[in-house]
Amino acid sequence: MSLATAALAHARADRDAALARLVELVSIPSISTDPAHAPDIRRAAEWVAGRLRDAGAAGVRIDETARHPVVYGEVLVDAAAPTVLVYGHYDVQPVDPVELWDTPPFTPTVRDGRLYARGACDDKGQLMTHLEALAAWRAVGGKPPVNLKVILEGEEEIGSPNLDAWVRAHKGELGAELAVISDTAMLAPGQPSICYGLRGLAYVEIEVTGAPGDLHSGVYGGAVKNPASALAQIIAALHDDQGRVTIPGFYDAVVGLTDAERADLAAVPFDLGAFGQATGQAGGWGDPAYSIVERLGARPTLDVNGIWSGWTGPGAKTVLPAKAHAKVSMRLVPDQSPHEAAAQLAAHVQTLAPAGVSVAVRELHGGWPARVDRGMPALNAAAAALESAFGRAPHLTLEGGSVPVVALFKQELGLDTVMLGFGLPDDNLHAPNEKFSLDNYFRGIETNIHFLANLAAAAQGAAGGRA
Amino acid sequence: MSLATAALAHARADRDAALARLVELVSIPSISTDPAHAPDIRRAAEWVAGRLRDAGAAGVRIDETARHPVVYGEVLVDAAAPTVLVYGHYDVQPVDPVELWDTPPFTPTVRDGRLYARGACDDKGQLMTHLEALAAWRAVGGKPPVNLKVILEGEEEIGSPNLDAWVRAHKGELGAELAVISDTAMLAPGQPSICYGLRGLAYVEIEVTGAPGDLHSGVYGGAVKNPASALAQIIAALHDDQGRVTIPGFYDAVVGLTDAERADLAAVPFDLGAFGQATGQAGGWGDPAYSIVERLGARPTLDVNGIWSGWTGPGAKTVLPAKAHAKVSMRLVPDQSPHEAAAQLAAHVQTLAPAGVSVAVRELHGGWPARVDRGMPALNAAAAALESAFGRAPHLTLEGGSVPVVALFKQELGLDTVMLGFGLPDDNLHAPNEKFSLDNYFRGIETNIHFLANLAAAAQGAAGGRA
Repeated sequence: MSLATAALAHARADRDAALARLVELVSIPSISTDPAHAPDIRRAAEWVAGRLRDAGAAGVRIDETARHPVVYGEVLVDAAAPTVLVYGHYDVQPVDPVELWDTPPFTPTVRDGRLYARGACDDKGQLMTHLEALAAWRAVGGKPPVNLKVILEGEEEIGSPNLDAWVRAHKGELGAELAVISDTAMLAPGQPSICYGLRGLAYVEIEVTGAPGDLHSGVYGGAVKNPASALAQIIAALHDDQGRVTIPGFYDAVVGLTDAERADLAAVPFDLGAFGQATGQAGGWGDPAYSIVERLGARPTLDVNGIWSGWTGPGAKTVLPAKAHAKVSMRLVPDQSPHEAAAQLAAHVQTLAPAGVSVAVRELHGGWPARVDRGMPALNAAAAALESAFGRAPHLTLEGGSVPVVALFKQELGLDTVMLGFGLPDDNLHAPNEKFSLDNYFRGIETNIHFLANLAAAAQGAAGGRA
Repeated sequence: MSLATAALAHARADRDAALARLVELVSIPSISTDPAHAPDIRRAAEWVAGRLRDAGAAGVRIDETARHPVVYGEVLVDAAAPTVLVYGHYDVQPVDPVELWDTPPFTPTVRDGRLYARGACDDKGQLMTHLEALAAWRAVGGKPPVNLKVILEGEEEIGSPNLDAWVRAHKGELGAELAVISDTAMLAPGQPSICYGLRGLAYVEIEVTGAPGDLHSGVYGGAVKNPASALAQIIAALHDDQGRVTIPGFYDAVVGLTDAERADLAAVPFDLGAFGQATGQAGGWGDPAYSIVERLGARPTLDVNGIWSGWTGPGAKTVLPAKAHAKVSMRLVPDQSPHEAAAQLAAHVQTLAPAGVSVAVRELHGGWPARVDRGMPALNAAAAALESAFGRAPHLTLEGGSVPVVALFKQELGLDTVMLGFGLPDDNLHAPNEKFSLDNYFRGIETNIHFLANLAAAAQGAAGGRA
């Protein structure tokens, strides 16, 4: 029995324990955006560092940053073997509206073969597939067949404000042949996929100001421009009636899809039923020149993420608000730039602002879009690994979310990233009742074991060929 | 020295004590919309009932309703004298955003001759002018020269949901010749006015629903109609580019102004400087076919009072919200109906709702507009009283706010209401730093003493003429 086979057998036998470990991790409310949860972020960092150490990594350390720490560790087995950079994030999104959770977000609960908890899928469950795979090699008395460098971040959900600096500062020790990240989704249960492109993000806050203070809507109503109405006008004008974004220049840098890509994307078995169930909009919405799959993966967007003004409590308050706010984000595709998109939006919003109010736009954060080379050899190793673990060959897909670190690894380290996603489209990321399929968790661990073995075999084959 | 003269002298000598009593009352956080403040509402009811008793009223009682109680008391001096129904409300608006108050809203503070506190003007300070006037007659060993029936309500700021029923149930004991209410504003310091018309109100909540739950804006953005954008579209479409409300039929029932009224309103010394300072919009906004004074008093409006959706906390959350809400109210003028206006709005909103979302409109509360007969004799008594107390004759004005009880008294009791307002346009009603001019408070007390004396004299003159 090869070590890989033994590691696989161990992983299968150890599923209950692997689940128990994940339950421990998702019990920690490591919400990175909320300063009140800073101690929980710290606890989560220490937990993953400990697990990384237990899994056989050396030199595991918790590197401080200006906010939340980066956990780093290495398993260096053979200078001649390929080196894989593994990335995951141990921070999670906030849990509001918490009253919509069926079970408390940090009291992990297994129902119908799924683990319900904030972070179960995004990204604690997925990062654990890598740590568990690593631990499996060690449990059977061996070492993985490739070198691994593992980066676990605590700021992904707030836009990774300190990761760029950390990566630049540690460039010298981060040399690798490729990166692997599990922070994306599969197409459907039993149907694996490899994501080769992700959208970027430009996130801004708009503040509209009318009067110096709130006014009585009876005393002043009818003679004063209402900032909430002004904000509504601005937001309404950001799309045309076909769902296209109206910001001048917004689409200029967008790289179109090739005919081959469009054909491949058209072949992706997109689950319209699940989409309709999740969204309540079976027919979808948006630019009719593109399919839903293309709109989600290959086209940029603009969405309101939050809006607030005036009286939002129970009952009726007859206030004419002084201010109105919105959080607005744009998903970006190659070669759009987050800063340029934010600047274009800010300029356009000023032209849309009606008389009587003033408008300020503040950039909250951004991330670059990414698309990796579809011909990259490691994709074959990954595809074979997925087929071994799930019994079905993966599709190549584009995803709509943002994993800005993919662009960072390309820009700073010259690495392409293999995105081995084990989430499902209805896993309620960033929403109440986030969940993770236990089957995907366990098969994800096995996929990673296969993947490392396949990478090593391919490298040996290539070396043998050269010899 | 007549009793009235003695009462006036007493009121002047007793100013410090009158202020101390008002400070006691405004220290009670009687916010009627917030269930957590129900005990404070009760305390405020007991306080005003006690004060009414001390001022000489008989049979003072606290009548329970389905929510907050009505305080009632009478001073019956002479069956041949006229009877005046006095109305005030002891509940107040919420205090958010509380961080914008220079001093805490329920820690009354005197600065520059003004009392700063929630309710200082609306309506505790103004209702106290009546209780203090009544107390002044008693303090000099006399009784007021007319009969008084005093109603003090605890639900005005939530739309008086139980007052109609209370008034109907007590119709038999509420017989009177006229009503007087101090819950409006003077034009400017030193320039009294009598309000002869008030706007009504129709207040609704709009709920837009997209997906069954919040979605990840990356996973679904670009293929799903965003309910916050949909709400923005709806709100933006509720006005045309001239500031007119677009709801079909909205203006059909509006009674136009006569040429005489327009001329009188044009002569009102409207303080454009103060308006500009309070609103930040010196030129005003709205339907260019009407002056600012007309827009504020004689024209109906539609305003967003609150809006909320998605993530409104600190930082960036990439949520595509499932729901978006707005509180929207319309100020109404004769002969618009609150229910009809709400129904018209609800119907129009349905036609504006874009595909992909559903919209529900819920009526929160309403109040009828009112306009009293400008030729009514008690207006002369009131005008003379104001001139005696302030040294200047009042203007006849229309006000933009709502005092729905004026319509109620007309409909149920057949009474016209004299609105003796002592507020000022910049008193920050319903907003942070609400205040009340102490000069207006003290002159308000004196005005009420004069007013009762003038009413009695006019009745005696009329009776003498008939004899």
